[in-house]
Amino acid sequence: MSNSNITLKIGKTLSIPLNTELTTKFQQISQQLMEIQSLFQAESDEDKISYERAWSIIPDVNDEYIKDIISCAEDIRKNYKAFVTVGIGGSDLCARLFHELINPVYFNSMKDRFGAPEIYFTGDTFDPRGLYGLLYVLKEKEILDKTVFHIVSKSGKTAETFASAVIIRQWLKDNWHEQVITTTAGDPSSVLFQMNQQKPFRKLLVMPKGVGGRFSAFTSVGLLLLAVTAMESETPKIRIQKAIKGLKLAKEIFEKPYYHQDNIPYRLAGWLQLMEYMGKTIIEFYDYADHHFLADWFVQLYDESVQERGQGLTVRPLRGPTSNHSALNGIVNGPKDKVVLFINWKNLWHEIYGETESSIQSYNDIQDKELSELCNLKLSQLQEASYVGTAEDFNDKGIPNATLIVSERSIESVSALMRILMDTTAVKGRLQGLHFDENGSIDLKHELTYLQSGVEGYKQRMRENIRTVRS
Amino acid sequence: MSNSNITLKIGKTLSIPLNTELTTKFQQISQQLMEIQSLFQAESDEDKISYERAWSIIPDVNDEYIKDIISCAEDIRKNYKAFVTVGIGGSDLCARLFHELINPVYFNSMKDRFGAPEIYFTGDTFDPRGLYGLLYVLKEKEILDKTVFHIVSKSGKTAETFASAVIIRQWLKDNWHEQVITTTAGDPSSVLFQMNQQKPFRKLLVMPKGVGGRFSAFTSVGLLLLAVTAMESETPKIRIQKAIKGLKLAKEIFEKPYYHQDNIPYRLAGWLQLMEYMGKTIIEFYDYADHHFLADWFVQLYDESVQERGQGLTVRPLRGPTSNHSALNGIVNGPKDKVVLFINWKNLWHEIYGETESSIQSYNDIQDKELSELCNLKLSQLQEASYVGTAEDFNDKGIPNATLIVSERSIESVSALMRILMDTTAVKGRLQGLHFDENGSIDLKHELTYLQSGVEGYKQRMRENIRTVRS
Repeated sequence: MSNSNITLKIGKTLSIPLNTELTTKFQQISQQLMEIQSLFQAESDEDKISYERAWSIIPDVNDEYIKDIISCAEDIRKNYKAFVTVGIGGSDLCARLFHELINPVYFNSMKDRFGAPEIYFTGDTFDPRGLYGLLYVLKEKEILDKTVFHIVSKSGKTAETFASAVIIRQWLKDNWHEQVITTTAGDPSSVLFQMNQQKPFRKLLVMPKGVGGRFSAFTSVGLLLLAVTAMESETPKIRIQKAIKGLKLAKEIFEKPYYHQDNIPYRLAGWLQLMEYMGKTIIEFYDYADHHFLADWFVQLYDESVQERGQGLTVRPLRGPTSNHSALNGIVNGPKDKVVLFINWKNLWHEIYGETESSIQSYNDIQDKELSELCNLKLSQLQEASYVGTAEDFNDKGIPNATLIVSERSIESVSALMRILMDTTAVKGRLQGLHFDENGSIDLKHELTYLQSGVEGYKQRMRENIRTVRS
Repeated sequence: MSNSNITLKIGKTLSIPLNTELTTKFQQISQQLMEIQSLFQAESDEDKISYERAWSIIPDVNDEYIKDIISCAEDIRKNYKAFVTVGIGGSDLCARLFHELINPVYFNSMKDRFGAPEIYFTGDTFDPRGLYGLLYVLKEKEILDKTVFHIVSKSGKTAETFASAVIIRQWLKDNWHEQVITTTAGDPSSVLFQMNQQKPFRKLLVMPKGVGGRFSAFTSVGLLLLAVTAMESETPKIRIQKAIKGLKLAKEIFEKPYYHQDNIPYRLAGWLQLMEYMGKTIIEFYDYADHHFLADWFVQLYDESVQERGQGLTVRPLRGPTSNHSALNGIVNGPKDKVVLFINWKNLWHEIYGETESSIQSYNDIQDKELSELCNLKLSQLQEASYVGTAEDFNDKGIPNATLIVSERSIESVSALMRILMDTTAVKGRLQGLHFDENGSIDLKHELTYLQSGVEGYKQRMRENIRTVRS
């Protein structure tokens, strides 16, 4: 398989001669990357589970686990008119991302969805508006009893998700267990697992051991949504095959020598590390397309994984060219504390429309030099010109930038891209020394990149405040 | 009118004793705020127009301009089944915000919208997916000829918006002018104004002189959407009256002495200035509710207005408690370069549901101490406990934070809040000296807070790249 689907281009800033200090730092980072690659290679599959790196095991479409997801998706398509993902953070952002990037917009309004149910999301807040609004609408449409809820929580205790699940239960009454599918831990550490033992849900899908929430996109957390929404000439199985194909591509990239031109995770993590050393503090994640959730997913992945021990760039989500009319002025003229990571998509026309994209016609009402330049081009050509213009302008003005060029908005490419960003995060964590213990010894079992910590303070205080409300 | 609707609470960090250096800085900022307030007071209404501050003139519901918006909204409600806002940045974010915060979720799926059409947005990207998806769906629903498009662009030349408008025209054919309402400049500097002269649109609404795009929420840019979507027991006029009421509340707040406890814009801008002096570089705009667009709107307002001349904090959009599961770890454990601005909403239940919010029932399947604490409470009570817990945790961990407490999610409160944020931005611009010329003289006519600059580079390069594509 070639590496033609995704390439990394680093902007002009780094091609200027480095001074001695930066050259030394660059060499030091290269040395670290070499050692990190040796570490990753030395970890066996068994170790991956105990080191919380099981997300990097590529499944096969014939694995029992994947077969279960496919048959669950087929069951949903056959028996339900709506499918609701109930989760927060790592438990819903990947499903939202798949739905937004892969499926047609205005999905629920389409006359023919080729067997897919309507798609909704909830469980990511205590703000009552979204959940009650959803239940009202499903009831008004008379499909509430034809709706299946996919409740995602490894511990089964995530407060926002669990509270939503209990309210859904109040509305569904006796039929709740039948209309619930859950992805959760496969042992009694999960409350949802315990509930399932007392009275089985329609389906329990096990969160694989050694997979942290934010690295769980390619388990049933994300794959079930992807499979359920199979479109024309697809099946759930075909969709999952495509995702696995993308993961394999990313794995090949990750296994090339760390210094190889095509090894994006090592090159990108190294570049970010150097930028941080040069005093940059913000990554502008500039997804040059009409998406929200790829950036939101990356914020979650990166902030939670590497902003520990006082290090790590802060990720801000942006969209091109939309954000050119909001954040761009600040990037160009504001403090020089930002680096830009563009995602540049090469084929933005969506196959569901079935035809070729039309060009913008000329208009004769007015003569305007600037506007006449838009004529006879397609929107997607303007999109490319806008990206190239913005990147060139950043180069010209000394804003460090790198671009991940993605060949198309397909399941393969999106899966490969996500996996590359996960691998980049894993490498960046180790560049920040998150695999060392306090004495400087290598301590992979407690590698902070994959562990969640630091959130307990607000959770504990929230509980205290609940007790205050109640009393 | 009281100031009970919106209050500002500054977290514990600033109540610790300031050292001598900070005390001196604080006094210096206070002195500046006093001078800034004198300047604002000295500007007459006439000056407001020439200084691009006409957004701060409060309209009356009987002004011809407002009457025009109301009658246009009534025309749309009577004659159309769908209303599409076509704009980008300052020309669409306020309308998106009003729709998201004020109207029920799943608006287009409601059986009874009390006379309001379906609501859509486009024109904020060259990515072809959203626009073509929308046109396909409107055609499939057989309401494309019953759809009215509100094209918003002061110059009429905004490339993303204009390109979308021309494609919409291709689909509507001869009926285009009839199905277009435009908000644009009232003179031939606007291409849309020129087009309207040759063949009139259904309606041309004039963008008032002296109102920059990002300060235009309370012109037809935002108010038309608000009026069109009037719900049960409301009319377009009532909705606009409510917005004006909110603006008046904000004006009263702004005119109190700068040091007054209730004068949020001066206190908040001063606090942000001090935080910047202390080395903070990021504002986490933590809207503690299930919204996206209030934060997106503020990013646009603040980044474009004050991130000039190398100063100004960078705004990152966050949501509570959703972002507690993504960005919070980084705020608590990452670099100490962040300040948090919470928006805390006191009444999150939406009146459209007509009933009282129910409490979460107890569940007997499992015994879990943590989860049992959630029982018998409403989601909105949990939301409040979650906000308080998060703010307390930040206080405890030394993360500087301030909170804007908003009494309810109503038109009055949302309008007052937006206007307070606009005023805060205006004060912050002057704190950064954006009203001085290069020689240090006061230069209100070229005040950078209200001017757009710095974006021409990418636009010029985009045009060059268009010529490359074409050749």
